Amino acid sequence: MSEYRFFHSIEIRYGDIDAQRHVNNARHFTYMEQARSKYIKALGLWEGSDFDAIGIILAEQSCRYINPIQLESDIKVGVRTVRLGEKSIETQYSIQDSQTGDELAVGQATLVAYDYQLRKSIPIPDDWRVVIASFDDI
Amino acid sequence: MSEYRFFHSIEIRYGDIDAQRHVNNARHFTYMEQARSKYIKALGLWEGSDFDAIGIILAEQSCRYINPIQLESDIKVGVRTVRLGEKSIETQYSIQDSQTGDELAVGQATLVAYDYQLRKSIPIPDDWRVVIASFDDI
Amino acid sequence: MSEYRFFHSIEIRYGDIDAQRHVNNARHFTYMEQARSKYIKALGLWEGSDFDAIGIILAEQSCRYINPIQLESDIKVGVRTVRLGEKSIETQYSIQDSQTGDELAVGQATLVAYDYQLRKSIPIPDDWRVVIASFDDI
Amino acid sequence: MSEYRFFHSIEIRYGDIDAQRHVNNARHFTYMEQARSKYIKALGLWEGSDFDAIGIILAEQSCRYINPIQLESDIKVGVRTVRLGEKSIETQYSIQDSQTGDELAVGQATLVAYDYQLRKSIPIPDDWRVVIASFDDI
Repeated sequence: MSEYRFFHSIEIRYGDIDAQRHVNNARHFTYMEQARSKYIKALGLWEGSDFDAIGIILAEQSCRYINPIQLESDIKVGVRTVRLGEKSIETQYSIQDSQTGDELAVGQATLVAYDYQLRKSIPIPDDWRVVIASFDDI
Repeated sequence: MSEYRFFHSIEIRYGDIDAQRHVNNARHFTYMEQARSKYIKALGLWEGSDFDAIGIILAEQSCRYINPIQLESDIKVGVRTVRLGEKSIETQYSIQDSQTGDELAVGQATLVAYDYQLRKSIPIPDDWRVVIASFDDI
Repeated sequence: MSEYRFFHSIEIRYGDIDAQRHVNNARHFTYMEQARSKYIKALGLWEGSDFDAIGIILAEQSCRYINPIQLESDIKVGVRTVRLGEKSIETQYSIQDSQTGDELAVGQATLVAYDYQLRKSIPIPDDWRVVIASFDDI
Repeated sequence: MSEYRFFHSIEIRYGDIDAQRHVNNARHFTYMEQARSKYIKALGLWEGSDFDAIGIILAEQSCRYINPIQLESDIKVGVRTVRLGEKSIETQYSIQDSQTGDELAVGQATLVAYDYQLRKSIPIPDDWRVVIASFDDI
C-alpha cells in the first residue's frame, strides 16, 4: 500500500476562492468528500441516489495544507483505504496538482459503518470488506 | 403593503466572501432562503425539522445588487408576501444595512405549493392563505 | 441568435445537495457564475488569476427552475450574450441535461463594466465589444 | 487551561444541511473558521476588513464528530489557544449545544504567523503573544 489507485479530478469553482484569493480551507474537505463519494461509487458500494442507503458516517477527519490552491490550478484527489477495523474504515487523501503531481494538501478520514434504521454503528458488511481490501490491496 | 413586517438578521461569514472581497453574489440567495425559512417558521407554516413536510418549491427568483456587502457589514433581510395566486406565493426581499437601513440588494421569489407525495403542485392550503394574508395585510 | 455557442460542463458535488435531496437553489447561481467565468476566459477577456483586473460586476440576475437537479445528473451550462449596452452586458444561461439536452433551469444576468481603480462603471471596452459581438453573432 | 473563555454563536443555515439532513461535515470547518475570525477580532489582532493584513495561515486542522448537528440546533463554538510556538499557534474548538452545553464536535487547528509581503512564515509578533497568552492564561 504505497500508491493511490483511485483519483478523481475536481474543477475548482470561482466560488471556492475566498478573500485570501486561494481555495478556502473548508473546501478541501468538500473536495475530499466529493472524491470519496466517487470512490465509494466506483467500488460499487453505493449507487449514488438513495441517501438513506449510505451506510457510512464520518467519525473524524483532518487536512494538512501544503500549498495554497489557486483558481487556475488543475487538481485531482487520490483516495485510498489504509485499514479496515471491525466497524471503521481508515481513509487517506492526497490533493495533487494534476500536471506536476505535487501534493497541495493531504487528508485523512475515519468512516464508520452505520445502520440508519437502527441508528447505530454496525460491523463493516463483509462484501464491502472484500471489495475494499481487494481494490486497495490491504 | 409598503413595509416589511418581518426581518431576519444574518451574520456574514468569512467563508461568504469571495475573491472580490465582498459577499459572493450567490450568497444573497442563501441569505434570502435563510430569511424565508425563518419567515415561514415564524408564521407557523413549517415547524423546522421535517424536510418532507415543506410544501413549497421555488419556481423562480431574482436579485438586484445595489451595493457590495462587506464582511464587517451588519445586515438584515426583510421578507414579505405581496400576492397569493391559486398555487403560487409571490415574495419579496430587502437586504438592508441594519444600522442605516440602506438597501444593499433586493430580491423576489415565486414559491409554489407542492405535494411531495403526489409530486405535483397543489392549491395553497387555506390555512396558509389566511395566515399569510393576515400577517402581510394583503 | 437562437443557440448557445458556449457550454461548460459542471460536476455536481455531494455538497451541492440540500435537505430536499436535489441541488440547492442557490447553487444554480454558482453554476452560472462558473460557466460565465469560463466563457469570459474562453473569449480572452480575462486571464483567470488577477482578481483586481476583472472589469465586470453583477447588477442583477435571475433563475427559473424547471426541473430539480439530482446528484447523479450530468449537466452543462450554456452561456451567451444577447445584448451589449453602453455599459451593460446582457447574458443568458441554460442549465441542461448533457445527455438529453433537456433544460433544467434558465437564467439571466446583467453585467456592468467596472473600473476597480476609479470605483465606477465604465463603457464596455471596444475590444470586449468586438470579441463578444463576433462570438455570439449579435 | 481547562475552559473556553471565548464562545461565538453560529446560526445554522438551511443551506448548511446536506442530503443526510444534518449539517454537512465540511461546514464544521466553516463554523470553526467563523468563530476563530471573531476570536482574533475580539483579541484585537485583526480589525476585520484588511484581507492582506491577516498575518496567519492555516497549517493543519481536524474535527471529531460527536453528534450530528440539526437545522434546529442552537449552537456556539468555543475557541482557545493552548500553545504558542515560535511561529505557530495551536488552537482548539468545541462546538456545543447552546442550551445543554453538550459537545457536538471538537476541533483543532494549527495557525502559522505569515508575512504576505515576504511570502513566508514569521515568528509570532510579540504583541500577539502577550495578548493571546493573557486572554487564555497559557
